[in-house]
Amino acid sequence: MVRVGILAASGYIGGELLRLLLQHPEAQVTTATSRKYAGEYVFRVHPNLRGMTELKFSANDATKVIADSDVVFAALPHGESVKIVPQIADAGLRVVDLSADFRLSDKGLYPSWYGYDHPRPDLLEKFVFSIPEINRDEVRGARLVSSPGCMAITAILALAPLLKEKALGIDRDHIVVDAKVGSSGAGGKPSLSTHFSERFSVVRPYSPAGHRHSAEIEQVLAAMAGEQVKVSMSAHAVNMVRGILVTSHLFMANGAKPLDIWKAYRSMYAGSYFVRLVRDKQGPFRLPDPKLVVGSNFCDVGFEIDERNGRLVALSATDNLIKGAAGNAIQSMNLMMGFDEKTGLAMAPLHPV
Amino acid sequence: MVRVGILAASGYIGGELLRLLLQHPEAQVTTATSRKYAGEYVFRVHPNLRGMTELKFSANDATKVIADSDVVFAALPHGESVKIVPQIADAGLRVVDLSADFRLSDKGLYPSWYGYDHPRPDLLEKFVFSIPEINRDEVRGARLVSSPGCMAITAILALAPLLKEKALGIDRDHIVVDAKVGSSGAGGKPSLSTHFSERFSVVRPYSPAGHRHSAEIEQVLAAMAGEQVKVSMSAHAVNMVRGILVTSHLFMANGAKPLDIWKAYRSMYAGSYFVRLVRDKQGPFRLPDPKLVVGSNFCDVGFEIDERNGRLVALSATDNLIKGAAGNAIQSMNLMMGFDEKTGLAMAPLHPV
Amino acid sequence: MVRVGILAASGYIGGELLRLLLQHPEAQVTTATSRKYAGEYVFRVHPNLRGMTELKFSANDATKVIADSDVVFAALPHGESVKIVPQIADAGLRVVDLSADFRLSDKGLYPSWYGYDHPRPDLLEKFVFSIPEINRDEVRGARLVSSPGCMAITAILALAPLLKEKALGIDRDHIVVDAKVGSSGAGGKPSLSTHFSERFSVVRPYSPAGHRHSAEIEQVLAAMAGEQVKVSMSAHAVNMVRGILVTSHLFMANGAKPLDIWKAYRSMYAGSYFVRLVRDKQGPFRLPDPKLVVGSNFCDVGFEIDERNGRLVALSATDNLIKGAAGNAIQSMNLMMGFDEKTGLAMAPLHPV
Amino acid sequence: MVRVGILAASGYIGGELLRLLLQHPEAQVTTATSRKYAGEYVFRVHPNLRGMTELKFSANDATKVIADSDVVFAALPHGESVKIVPQIADAGLRVVDLSADFRLSDKGLYPSWYGYDHPRPDLLEKFVFSIPEINRDEVRGARLVSSPGCMAITAILALAPLLKEKALGIDRDHIVVDAKVGSSGAGGKPSLSTHFSERFSVVRPYSPAGHRHSAEIEQVLAAMAGEQVKVSMSAHAVNMVRGILVTSHLFMANGAKPLDIWKAYRSMYAGSYFVRLVRDKQGPFRLPDPKLVVGSNFCDVGFEIDERNGRLVALSATDNLIKGAAGNAIQSMNLMMGFDEKTGLAMAPLHPV
Repeated sequence: MVRVGILAASGYIGGELLRLLLQHPEAQVTTATSRKYAGEYVFRVHPNLRGMTELKFSANDATKVIADSDVVFAALPHGESVKIVPQIADAGLRVVDLSADFRLSDKGLYPSWYGYDHPRPDLLEKFVFSIPEINRDEVRGARLVSSPGCMAITAILALAPLLKEKALGIDRDHIVVDAKVGSSGAGGKPSLSTHFSERFSVVRPYSPAGHRHSAEIEQVLAAMAGEQVKVSMSAHAVNMVRGILVTSHLFMANGAKPLDIWKAYRSMYAGSYFVRLVRDKQGPFRLPDPKLVVGSNFCDVGFEIDERNGRLVALSATDNLIKGAAGNAIQSMNLMMGFDEKTGLAMAPLHPV
Repeated sequence: MVRVGILAASGYIGGELLRLLLQHPEAQVTTATSRKYAGEYVFRVHPNLRGMTELKFSANDATKVIADSDVVFAALPHGESVKIVPQIADAGLRVVDLSADFRLSDKGLYPSWYGYDHPRPDLLEKFVFSIPEINRDEVRGARLVSSPGCMAITAILALAPLLKEKALGIDRDHIVVDAKVGSSGAGGKPSLSTHFSERFSVVRPYSPAGHRHSAEIEQVLAAMAGEQVKVSMSAHAVNMVRGILVTSHLFMANGAKPLDIWKAYRSMYAGSYFVRLVRDKQGPFRLPDPKLVVGSNFCDVGFEIDERNGRLVALSATDNLIKGAAGNAIQSMNLMMGFDEKTGLAMAPLHPV
Repeated sequence: MVRVGILAASGYIGGELLRLLLQHPEAQVTTATSRKYAGEYVFRVHPNLRGMTELKFSANDATKVIADSDVVFAALPHGESVKIVPQIADAGLRVVDLSADFRLSDKGLYPSWYGYDHPRPDLLEKFVFSIPEINRDEVRGARLVSSPGCMAITAILALAPLLKEKALGIDRDHIVVDAKVGSSGAGGKPSLSTHFSERFSVVRPYSPAGHRHSAEIEQVLAAMAGEQVKVSMSAHAVNMVRGILVTSHLFMANGAKPLDIWKAYRSMYAGSYFVRLVRDKQGPFRLPDPKLVVGSNFCDVGFEIDERNGRLVALSATDNLIKGAAGNAIQSMNLMMGFDEKTGLAMAPLHPV
Repeated sequence: MVRVGILAASGYIGGELLRLLLQHPEAQVTTATSRKYAGEYVFRVHPNLRGMTELKFSANDATKVIADSDVVFAALPHGESVKIVPQIADAGLRVVDLSADFRLSDKGLYPSWYGYDHPRPDLLEKFVFSIPEINRDEVRGARLVSSPGCMAITAILALAPLLKEKALGIDRDHIVVDAKVGSSGAGGKPSLSTHFSERFSVVRPYSPAGHRHSAEIEQVLAAMAGEQVKVSMSAHAVNMVRGILVTSHLFMANGAKPLDIWKAYRSMYAGSYFVRLVRDKQGPFRLPDPKLVVGSNFCDVGFEIDERNGRLVALSATDNLIKGAAGNAIQSMNLMMGFDEKTGLAMAPLHPV
């Protein structure tokens, strides 16, 4: 049994880490920290866990977390993680960080995207940016891992194989990533914009330009393409709690056919249980839809070709709290610890829900 | 490994039986029948199961089901189950029936409530009406089990302890059961009333009087009270897919205090993992809410006393497809087979969802 | 043109008063007060009104409101209205108060239901409790009117005719009022319980016992019955923004038939445009459903008889912000000013929505 | 009073035409046809209209419609309208057609986009494609008008001024139009894909490539630009009933600033009451959101500039049944008849809803 600590366990991602790790057959959650709720029962903040755990939140005390854990999941906000995680990393523990603080390998990007100078650029090299379906071998050997943002994971899983496959001739200057996300991605803090009467039935554009996840997506895609890639991303809040659909619009020079696209996806995802290629001839769910991955660690990927305009529409869907966050992080831990990647994560999506 | 057959596996309850039993560590699903989809892959009808099973639907052939199964779950409509289940029961298999065809022990009730004369009244005695939290010992020894309706299970779990505890002085003539249910309880067949544009944001009264589940509720409550009990039930469709909240309004003669009600519940549900008593002092979820049981086999039960009018408001919530149907059925099988009751059913509710 | 002032115009009821009165052919909104937004454009707070008005919020200055208005609508919280409205009433203006501060005619009820001693019991006699369909003539001559709570209006419109008609033999001790309401009734202030991720898809019991609107309902029903009536009310928040369905469960001594119930309703509501009796033989909307009144001033009323238990299920639906609040208030003003009752209120419900 | 006939009045667009025209001060609805419901009361099919009209549906009899109407609104499916509308047009009546049958001026486009050869190409020249904000003067003099598709209207109102303004240097080959639409746009016919349990909480890509409205958008934009324009459109069904948000992603050569975009919009929409330019500095509704136009004839338009990639994100929102369909059609009639454009259409959006 690996002893697990969770930093900032009172948020939605923290709650999902708790839910999954409390049921994980190889993990024992020893610590769940919360500045606000230290001393409080976990089930008071995450009432879905009533009857399932007597764990209490503890303070953000690095020394204690280090003493009680083999692996630490950090679900802190960006800018906060970098204050405590280095100490844990330096102590030799394995870390899965879910903030943005260790995602970008170029320290020069932090001031412009996140507004601070990175205090530990040495760690940026040591942290492995982890999407197991993209770089499983690297993750397997890692001690320090950074789990990307929910929209980044979802977009990258649809885009990486397309950029990698040069023969498709993807136009790297006109990649439009149009994301539709549920409310849980915005966290648990009430505000006017999340007030039910104001949030119900919206299609609300937020970050139409300059969404921070663009940077991580560009970083991965550039690595795939071997050249710079520009990602033009816009995000929209829609009327649901869980789930992301990313619609990526790409222009192709070479008139690729469906079979070519299939091949690109299959060659990257053969053996990746959690990516499902979805492209049926009929039915309401013939293409990816977040509704069909809710409650699971799956990312569904599909596409359509617009022959008239030489456009490729790539579609990808995740449960933003699972494959988009806690699930991807636990999958990474499974690899780091030498467990089967699916351990504790193989639950089927709920349907209908 | 117990070999499991599922009759009528293409509906929502069938899909939920499949989802849960495919992941059940002691069960192997050998057969899933569907008149309409025989020969089709299961994941075409239940696309959430893509990538999780290569099983195909087979025809409703009793001989084959009998040959391949140790336990059969029948999710057929009422009136259909009674045509095929007797043959399976007579062949000595264990059966968990989810229709109404074996729920009422008094054959005289079938003509008025269901419009047919029961062809096998001998079986009505042999089938055990199963809510493990109410009659666990009886279920343990049973070979033939009837799993109640979703609203009946939810209502009974709130009401049975109150009727059993004579000292509360519950007025048995004025029990109002006001249920609010999600769309999945109505099944998967499209119609004008389930058309999204017509169904979204409704609070639609249906069966305001004479809901069939009243009969099973009265049957259990009369057994608890040792006297006849009248249940006045009304059901409403609300704007969600999964979940039931049952609000039961009871009048009490004896001025019971909260502690008395607690005691009645605790004495019946001590040791019942799947019933959670929920009555916090504060918080958005201080009383049962279906939102907090979605994805789980829990039934949350709570209450409030209206001292001014001598009224007790009992509240109970389930995921109608799990504890209200497939979960309760599998829990029954677990007991029948001597497994731990929780086997394959201990998943935590999702939150938020 | 009547000059209209609106106190506390920044909330949802205030916004609805603004929306309707800005389009009212006989009214001119001169003043809209808001402590928080004084000096701000109205359309910044109610962005649906962009392009429709250049009005700005002003401070809660009674003198100025009195100078600029002929009629004042007060949408203040209870306890606040009583601090400013007396001054306006004493100045001789017409007042339509939407708080609870002038609803109960018995001053002795204020300490127990609202926690304060009423400072101006003399005004309680002068204010007319107004539901035009119940006491149109009284409202017509009034200068001071109190418009009831949304759940009270909805419940009363279903119940009053039944209690008035003695021949029905309604059991006055066992009247259960089970309400299902949208989020807008809870106002515009964000909190954890209204945070979208926590509020979406709930069926949340709140005030299962002791809802304050019980007092006003009992007051009207007692007047109808000529005897004390006990109302046992519970309210539930459901997954929608606008609308209320009230399900009232009543027990009848005398075996009334549908025709008897029809007669009771028709005799009270003949000539009342805004009450629609809804009881079709078929169709998804054969009984009242809030979905079908959204955007309108209608209250739909219907019923079903449970012969088995001598129960009458009365159903009523309103748009809580219109007939449940702003619409009922404007309808009252129309009568007070001698306008046609429907002026500015005859818009059809939206469907589907 | 203009006598109005409505063809195919039983669908959602027909229902909306009825709702608005029954309340229109200058119109009298004489005829509402429905093949399926001929002889039935209109309020049986559109139950929101209960109590508001005693009109009955009549058969699709052109002779009778011609005799009783001055203006005919045709809400027939494409391919059906062209069978009956020419007869009405030839009889000299004014026609507002809401199908696709008279939208495209190039008859050569019908076989590829709609699968039929146009039988009356002469009429294509006579029908004016009407979005009053784009070509008000043309509509004013017209007798025959074609009202575009809901997504086309919404997209065009955001895009036309940008393509017209050459100085912006819009890249005409990489225009991505990503639409998010409510369920009412798909009509009132039940199917598996519109079954509530399958449709709730989806983000479902449909027509990711080749949406038919692309043709009309390209037609208008080419007229604006004076050159061919390629529109790459994808549509998604989201979890709401009414409303469209169109997110248009454009690439600009010339580094335009916000002020340049403002000018392009203002120069086209000065004097257009129903287009609101929305671009606040803060607040949940600082950019267009369909939630804020529901119930109204407004189209809200706004934008954001992605300087990093030279991208312009244009956003537009409508109530698809009003400005996207019935409202635009009635606005066109108002102009054709010489009424004020706003007559019967100036209702404020509902909020919150």
